Amino acid sequence: MNPTPPSDTEERAMRHALSLASNGPATGVNPRVGCVILRGDGSIAAEGWHRGAGTPHAEVDALARLAPGEAAGLTAVVTLEPCNHHGRTGPCSEALLDAGVARVVFSVDDPGEHSAGGAERLAEAGVAVVSGVLVDEGTEFLRRWLTSERLRRPFVTVKWASSLDGRVAAADGSSRWITGTAARQHVHEQRAAHDAILVGTGTVLADDPSLTARGDAGELLPHQPRPVIVGERAVPRDASILRHPRGTIELRTRDLEKALGELYADEIRSVFVEGGPTIATELVRLGLADDILVYLAPTLIGGPRLALGDVGVRSIDDQQRLRVMSVTPLGDDLAILARTQSGSS
Amino acid sequence: MNPTPPSDTEERAMRHALSLASNGPATGVNPRVGCVILRGDGSIAAEGWHRGAGTPHAEVDALARLAPGEAAGLTAVVTLEPCNHHGRTGPCSEALLDAGVARVVFSVDDPGEHSAGGAERLAEAGVAVVSGVLVDEGTEFLRRWLTSERLRRPFVTVKWASSLDGRVAAADGSSRWITGTAARQHVHEQRAAHDAILVGTGTVLADDPSLTARGDAGELLPHQPRPVIVGERAVPRDASILRHPRGTIELRTRDLEKALGELYADEIRSVFVEGGPTIATELVRLGLADDILVYLAPTLIGGPRLALGDVGVRSIDDQQRLRVMSVTPLGDDLAILARTQSGSS
Ligand SMILES: NC(=O)c1ccc[n+]([C@@H]2O[C@H](COP(=O)([O-])OP(=O)(O)OC[C@H]3O[C@@H](n4cnc5c(N)ncnc54)[C@H](OP(=O)(O)O)[C@@H]3O)[C@@H](O)[C@H]2O)c1
Ligand SMILES: NC(=O)c1ccc[n+]([C@@H]2O[C@H](COP(=O)([O-])OP(=O)(O)OC[C@H]3O[C@@H](n4cnc5c(N)ncnc54)[C@H](OP(=O)(O)O)[C@@H]3O)[C@@H](O)[C@H]2O)c1
Repeated sequence: MNPTPPSDTEERAMRHALSLASNGPATGVNPRVGCVILRGDGSIAAEGWHRGAGTPHAEVDALARLAPGEAAGLTAVVTLEPCNHHGRTGPCSEALLDAGVARVVFSVDDPGEHSAGGAERLAEAGVAVVSGVLVDEGTEFLRRWLTSERLRRPFVTVKWASSLDGRVAAADGSSRWITGTAARQHVHEQRAAHDAILVGTGTVLADDPSLTARGDAGELLPHQPRPVIVGERAVPRDASILRHPRGTIELRTRDLEKALGELYADEIRSVFVEGGPTIATELVRLGLADDILVYLAPTLIGGPRLALGDVGVRSIDDQQRLRVMSVTPLGDDLAILARTQSGSS
Repeated sequence: MNPTPPSDTEERAMRHALSLASNGPATGVNPRVGCVILRGDGSIAAEGWHRGAGTPHAEVDALARLAPGEAAGLTAVVTLEPCNHHGRTGPCSEALLDAGVARVVFSVDDPGEHSAGGAERLAEAGVAVVSGVLVDEGTEFLRRWLTSERLRRPFVTVKWASSLDGRVAAADGSSRWITGTAARQHVHEQRAAHDAILVGTGTVLADDPSLTARGDAGELLPHQPRPVIVGERAVPRDASILRHPRGTIELRTRDLEKALGELYADEIRSVFVEGGPTIATELVRLGLADDILVYLAPTLIGGPRLALGDVGVRSIDDQQRLRVMSVTPLGDDLAILARTQSGSS
């Protein structure tokens, strides 16, 4: 017997669950998930969300707010398919069954090798299960995590700051500054929203950046992404980046696919690339860039220092069309966030 | 005795005069001017604007709407200093004196060699003259014309359509299309707002463009700018551009300053540059570009076909900072209009 389709109340609850989910940390290995437990009359009995690895999943967090037996016969509305996975916490499918929940409504299927199967487990045990509720919003919300799960590598945001004519430095290599302070502060916030920052040895040797995420007053932001250097050359032992509070990952390779695989194995699910043109070009050429974030300054520079080199486009039919997600004015500059093919779920 | 400062009513009338002025043609040798005749009680007795070369100036247009003697003792509010110049029409200063106007309030000083001096003439004849009312708005409104008068060359808008990484074509030269239909239609409207379109021989030889200003359905727009080709090479006699309805100006030179001077002598006051990177680069390098209009498409191309080459910037301190005037979303593309130093009045 097919379960009743989702009601308007359940859709509204799903929207609320998505907003609960967004309270969770944007970084880390675990997806952000929200859960609402609905009574038969449509009122909310409890709500919960996941606060990061090692803490209860959203469903367990919500159930824990109810008295024993109170969840019996109620409906759980969850943004992601309940997991079926014995990890650091028990499977959510079992927790929902133990609590006696009668109906489970979720948005996005769990793509995980180890964690999927929750919907099936629940249905087999007699729970009414409805999937795909607000699936576009749910998928969009989990896009970075889903991309990373699907591709078994971190989600990659390639960032550059360029002039209107696509230059990242003047002929002599000087590049401080092309963009204004508002754009530079925005960069710091983006750093803090990723698990790692990646640069090539070229940038370390040229600019000696510290790559910490800092606030307006130069103070360190609470979340510091891991700095990562790729390239065969050794970097000087007194480089600023090696004094980073979280410790720097040095990947002495030019194989970027392999490098991203190693980062994934190291529990890094999102990478903010602030390397120079060489790394940016290679990532785009290899189809390893998911989001492109360009800070565009109203200035003309000309000359040889391009944001991107040869990305393998011979004819106009091969151009890499992006989907613009947002255009944000920042002082005199624009931040343009666009999505590549690989970054579109 | 100093005249009374402008009243709020006069400022409001000036704002209205500016909007009247904008009814005039954006192209051609004459500035767009609006005029309002105010009665003593602040009500509007008449209004007028200039409709283009050979037609009455704004002041004369407004006065003509009054009965003989009706203007005596009234105030004329004009966006530009009344001319003092015996041209195709008599000087406006004399017309205002003949009508017995008691007070003249204007926004922008006339920079013209032959036409300036109207304010002085009026004051000498005993009229109360107030200048500089809403002078920022007035100057901004007349910017193209003022720039052209000041520099004795046409106002130059350099346009290109590029990818997010600053390419105007793929490696093999193909470039149709980088931007979408909305952006391309916008280009046609910009063409129609200039006196001439300029390209280098390179663009004619590579693309064989017709350079007509066309509407949505491909129909010719009412105003067609003159097409101009610069470069030493001859272009084939069967080139599309040579069939342009207004006739093509061929300037067999690489001296762009001289070329612009010849266009100015030919009564061309604004040029829309749709040449390739060579012409765009030279105009920027020589400081001959006043506005930069970039159509930015969300696509990555890479490779050797740059919007701009070497514009003479060696170090970041020499970058050519622009002032962004507008950012207009057009389908997936953005039109970014920015002003250079020379284009800022
Ligand atoms: N405006 C901006 O947004 C911005 C941002 C960052 C940097 N920059 C500028 O960019 C310049 C540095 O540019 P860059 O391109 O040298 O920096 P980069 O891309 O950070 O580093 C390039 C180096 O990465 C290594 N590498 C790793 N994987 C590679 C691969 N698959 N292919 C090729 N090389 C690989 C190579 O070094 P090994 O020889 O060690 O293998 C290569 O020389 C500086 O002038 C800096 O100021 C500008
Ligand atoms: N995406 C876009 O917005 C856009 C727009 C237009 C063209 N394009 C592309 O641009 C390419 C053509 O590029 P291009 O740079 O050759 O075209 P161009 O700039 O229109 O023409 C260059 C030619 O202009 C002449 N010239 C005149 N004054 C000059 C000066 N001061 N310095 C140097 N040359 C001067 C030279 O020809 P002589 O030898 O005859 O003197 C030179 O070869 C085509 O592939 C076309 O598709 C793209």
